[in-house]
Amino acid sequence: MTATVYGVGLGPGDPELISVKADRLIRGTGVVAYFGKAGRTSNARTIAAGLLAADAIEIAMEYPVTTEIAFTDPAYNAALKDFYRDCVARLTAHTDAGRDVVVLCEGDPFLYGSFMHLHTRLAGRVPVVVVPGIPGMAGCWTATGAPITWGDDILTVLPATLDEATLTDRMGRADALVIMKLGKNLPKVRRALTAAGLIDRAVYVERGTMPGEAVLRLADKPDDAAPYFSMVLVHGEGRRP
Amino acid sequence: MTATVYGVGLGPGDPELISVKADRLIRGTGVVAYFGKAGRTSNARTIAAGLLAADAIEIAMEYPVTTEIAFTDPAYNAALKDFYRDCVARLTAHTDAGRDVVVLCEGDPFLYGSFMHLHTRLAGRVPVVVVPGIPGMAGCWTATGAPITWGDDILTVLPATLDEATLTDRMGRADALVIMKLGKNLPKVRRALTAAGLIDRAVYVERGTMPGEAVLRLADKPDDAAPYFSMVLVHGEGRRP
Repeated sequence: MTATVYGVGLGPGDPELISVKADRLIRGTGVVAYFGKAGRTSNARTIAAGLLAADAIEIAMEYPVTTEIAFTDPAYNAALKDFYRDCVARLTAHTDAGRDVVVLCEGDPFLYGSFMHLHTRLAGRVPVVVVPGIPGMAGCWTATGAPITWGDDILTVLPATLDEATLTDRMGRADALVIMKLGKNLPKVRRALTAAGLIDRAVYVERGTMPGEAVLRLADKPDDAAPYFSMVLVHGEGRRP
Repeated sequence: MTATVYGVGLGPGDPELISVKADRLIRGTGVVAYFGKAGRTSNARTIAAGLLAADAIEIAMEYPVTTEIAFTDPAYNAALKDFYRDCVARLTAHTDAGRDVVVLCEGDPFLYGSFMHLHTRLAGRVPVVVVPGIPGMAGCWTATGAPITWGDDILTVLPATLDEATLTDRMGRADALVIMKLGKNLPKVRRALTAAGLIDRAVYVERGTMPGEAVLRLADKPDDAAPYFSMVLVHGEGRRP
């Protein structure tokens, strides 16, 4: 009997926003795995730190590259392919020995999450169970204190990694907007929002639901630093009784 | 000292997918409120039933209309305005007496939720705290067993209440798609997906994460019945290493 890999959503960052099911699975597991950047504390591990059993085996999966190589460079893809293959081998060494593994996933595992790259490689090989989580974007729009969509608003979720023309075009058609993966792309996002006539409605959220949470109009943000936990939102203005 | 109204996300339907924070607030409250249709059991109350204190005061907020009147009819708006005013009066009768109120909200309160209509009327009058939840759509894409977005996929969330031309146009530009508020709109959604060339990729999900969960290709669904908890998804096919 092979054991199971659980891909468990942790939600937006506040440890109390983990689901009851995820809380139960994390507390109960003997083997826990998480992604992170080499030399840095894993964000996922930090969110779940209070739930880990003292004697849990930890599998730290450290990306060989993050933003040092452009994702259009074939070397990026090659490095990640090797990395995910290695991760799968580390996880299945445990499941083959009958030990379940819980993989900690920030936000929701199936919405722009790294876990999907393990999922596609594990499926058919071992049982995989995915536990959804509150997406980071829901934590961020809650932090703004205003609904993201009203009535028939269309919600568009845009990765900031897209080219400027595409961003501008899609922003111009949006009712409500979530812009993810800011990183080094914030100057481009500002230009696209300005071209789309939305810069005055754009809200910047950093560390939504976490200590150090910051919410401000993007137009009032004096710099272009956009750390890992950051997003830009434009709230819908649709029909309401 | 006035008390607080909590708008608490319940997640997609599985009671174990409620957050630890929502679980704590619901178990601890002396007054709980929920929306529902007259003469029917409230879906929100059903999800949270196992958490309610035996002696909790319950405020059932029953919509005067749902789909009997078109939302474009001024009578619809007028009826809902009166309804929300009445709901606010019922909630603030408790907060004015120093009793916190927990409002149960399916999914996430700030994503197409009824709570936002109370929120906008309560803000500035009493303290309001919103607790995000796992959106219904995340429960539905988890039920399909496949990620909704990969790499730089743009995610578009479309209310099926929009007109057919708008639906077709937006579907045609989509990488990944969530279509909500199906109700009587499923025939229109089928036509728009067909026109946009997406009908063969469309997946119908009913009661995601709940008893009676069903996932099937929309093209294989023989009827146009789409109950309250149902959605159509088109998965992204973006970049992956």
